[in-house]
Amino acid sequence: MERIVAAALADSSAFALLADLCDTAGSRLNGSEGQRRAVAWALDRLRAGGLDGVRAEPVMVPHWVRGRESCTLLEPYEQPLTLLGLGGSVGTPPGGIAAEVLAVRDFDELEARAAEAAGRLVLFDPPWEGYGKTVQYRGRGAVAAARHGAVGCLIRSVTDRSLATPHTGIMRYDKGDTIPRIPAAALSVEDAALLTRLARRGPVRVRLEMGAAQLPDAPSANVVADLTGRELPDEIVLAGAHLDSWDAGSGAHDDGAGCAIVMEAAFLLKRLGLAPRRTLRVVLFADEEMTQQGGRGYARDHAGELPRHRAALECDSGGFAPAGFTVQADSATVARFAALAAPLAPLGADAVTPGGGGVDISFLADAGVPLIGHRVHGERYFDVHHSPADTLDKVDPADLQRNVAAVAALLWLIAEAP
Amino acid sequence: MERIVAAALADSSAFALLADLCDTAGSRLNGSEGQRRAVAWALDRLRAGGLDGVRAEPVMVPHWVRGRESCTLLEPYEQPLTLLGLGGSVGTPPGGIAAEVLAVRDFDELEARAAEAAGRLVLFDPPWEGYGKTVQYRGRGAVAAARHGAVGCLIRSVTDRSLATPHTGIMRYDKGDTIPRIPAAALSVEDAALLTRLARRGPVRVRLEMGAAQLPDAPSANVVADLTGRELPDEIVLAGAHLDSWDAGSGAHDDGAGCAIVMEAAFLLKRLGLAPRRTLRVVLFADEEMTQQGGRGYARDHAGELPRHRAALECDSGGFAPAGFTVQADSATVARFAALAAPLAPLGADAVTPGGGGVDISFLADAGVPLIGHRVHGERYFDVHHSPADTLDKVDPADLQRNVAAVAALLWLIAEAP
Repeated sequence: MERIVAAALADSSAFALLADLCDTAGSRLNGSEGQRRAVAWALDRLRAGGLDGVRAEPVMVPHWVRGRESCTLLEPYEQPLTLLGLGGSVGTPPGGIAAEVLAVRDFDELEARAAEAAGRLVLFDPPWEGYGKTVQYRGRGAVAAARHGAVGCLIRSVTDRSLATPHTGIMRYDKGDTIPRIPAAALSVEDAALLTRLARRGPVRVRLEMGAAQLPDAPSANVVADLTGRELPDEIVLAGAHLDSWDAGSGAHDDGAGCAIVMEAAFLLKRLGLAPRRTLRVVLFADEEMTQQGGRGYARDHAGELPRHRAALECDSGGFAPAGFTVQADSATVARFAALAAPLAPLGADAVTPGGGGVDISFLADAGVPLIGHRVHGERYFDVHHSPADTLDKVDPADLQRNVAAVAALLWLIAEAP
Repeated sequence: MERIVAAALADSSAFALLADLCDTAGSRLNGSEGQRRAVAWALDRLRAGGLDGVRAEPVMVPHWVRGRESCTLLEPYEQPLTLLGLGGSVGTPPGGIAAEVLAVRDFDELEARAAEAAGRLVLFDPPWEGYGKTVQYRGRGAVAAARHGAVGCLIRSVTDRSLATPHTGIMRYDKGDTIPRIPAAALSVEDAALLTRLARRGPVRVRLEMGAAQLPDAPSANVVADLTGRELPDEIVLAGAHLDSWDAGSGAHDDGAGCAIVMEAAFLLKRLGLAPRRTLRVVLFADEEMTQQGGRGYARDHAGELPRHRAALECDSGGFAPAGFTVQADSATVARFAALAAPLAPLGADAVTPGGGGVDISFLADAGVPLIGHRVHGERYFDVHHSPADTLDKVDPADLQRNVAAVAALLWLIAEAP
């Protein structure tokens, strides 16, 4: 393990690999050319890294396209606003929707003012209370607003800090189709605050124009590669990340960093001539951002193998300084992984607590696979998450390499354990 | 003075005034409706504050309009880029200019690669070395590129930190008109870095489309108001800021904060019933951002009065925590103002050093008027400067109020001095 950590820290190839992904593929939205370039890139790089059985395992993914979009303040005066449509949203008619804004702080205020919502664009401008709480307006805002007759939904971007930065992400409609599907977009924090203030002074009208559309599902793929185990090749320790990203920025932290970490972890062991007792499998999942067809597809296609998956680890927390791991398993397994991670203290990666593993590997839980989530010091993560600011310059090469060291070491210890 | 400071610090009206400016007027570009709203707002507020001789003094200002603009990476793949056209730039033909990018670090690299510039879009991607140095690419980049046959000029936004934030600002063409006028725009730091990296790998093509145009000069005005001196009303201490802004964001720091500080400083003295020995004159200048017709016009129209201007202070450094003042005058005058400012130490506003006063008041220097520049802890200023992120939420109300305290106190001491 010490040899692995030392070799990882002496290296700088993770950042170069991430740069190559970001620059070769660009953004990697489901169904996009960038996503196709990324799959080809990953296959090529995994082969070049000397892994075994490098393959694309096909899945079909939702194919949402953004189209042209704009949001313009019309009243009390004309001014362009900064927006990103939300993934999965319907578009507007050509020329957009011009309507008065009903600015509310949260779901409670919408319910209290439900009678005012009909024919309006509802703006949710909640304070930042952490991602888990604040993201609800992105996911459920459109349904809540449409239920009361709103013609569109705007949200404050799901972030704390902003330099006029819009943040996208998936939204969802009611499955029953009884509630109209209205267009939904995120404004920058600054512009949401502006509309909220203006709405206290008088009528606020906005034009929202979105060319978004849902096309037929598109082919994509999980990219899979093995570092074959030397004694128990049929037993698998999975190291995953997701290859898709939103279309804004380069998806450098989300989840290019995760891809670079798990790929480099495997490459590092290979370069050191270390074949662990069990097979280490790298999986770069498709479609984490929308409907997780990659994670679902892997669990389905590998159902027969899942009883022999000894653990699955996912890196999808960004490429910031390592903090440790969360483990979704029985308490004995949590304790066992905590003991394995204890020597990672010099990397700051030894904190192991019970918690989720990751969206893509969550579909392996039913088969009893212990799940491990890679954790980092992500205080700045939501500054860039799902925004055009999620770019290479936000990743510190040394932090990324420390993650490679921590992840490679932990994977080795698990795959090697007696 | 202690009474002034205490009253200022007990107050919170500067932030409310700034919010009112930002929200009532919006952005305040030369020739825009927002600029007209701002002049009307200022006249109204200065009258309501009880100042004397509140008036608009007409000046004609350049009228540049941005129009629609976009920048799209075409090769090696298609991806939208984040841009703001530079003020004063010509537009592109409809449909834009599609050309290969020549990415250079600085003027030296352009000269070294001048033979490659013809027919290209030159991108200047200099490192941030402080505003004064880095802003040269915004001002002179287009001329430098066009001299070698470039068809357009892109620059890295003039800032250190970015969350995909484009920054505009004025650019200039060669007066001789021998060098073609090519369109010029600023990319976000992230996108400039992307193009630089891509250009190291192979050909990079971009489409730049800008609907910018220079219209005939438009009427605008300096807004002027006096707190008439009780003993020497013909002697004037001028307190200035500029009312115009760029069209991105609300110009909250640049220079809404300055307007709020000098207005509130005068209102505070008025509310306290303090008429200083000399007249305190508030001037909200037009057109700081482009050609300073406000500052030039004031100096011209008040030429006869300038010998009786005892000092002119300008607030145009943003509304961050106060730091002190720079003084452009003989060393005895610098020392005298430093002595006056010494009691502002509890506000952190006592640092007085030789230095410029401000762009708008610089035209008073020839008449021998001592110039004072208001200084703040502006480490974050260029994060938002000339960008859509220059918004109210970036201003701390307490910091703003401390500036009112410091500026009101210093103005009082100068206007009151025997």
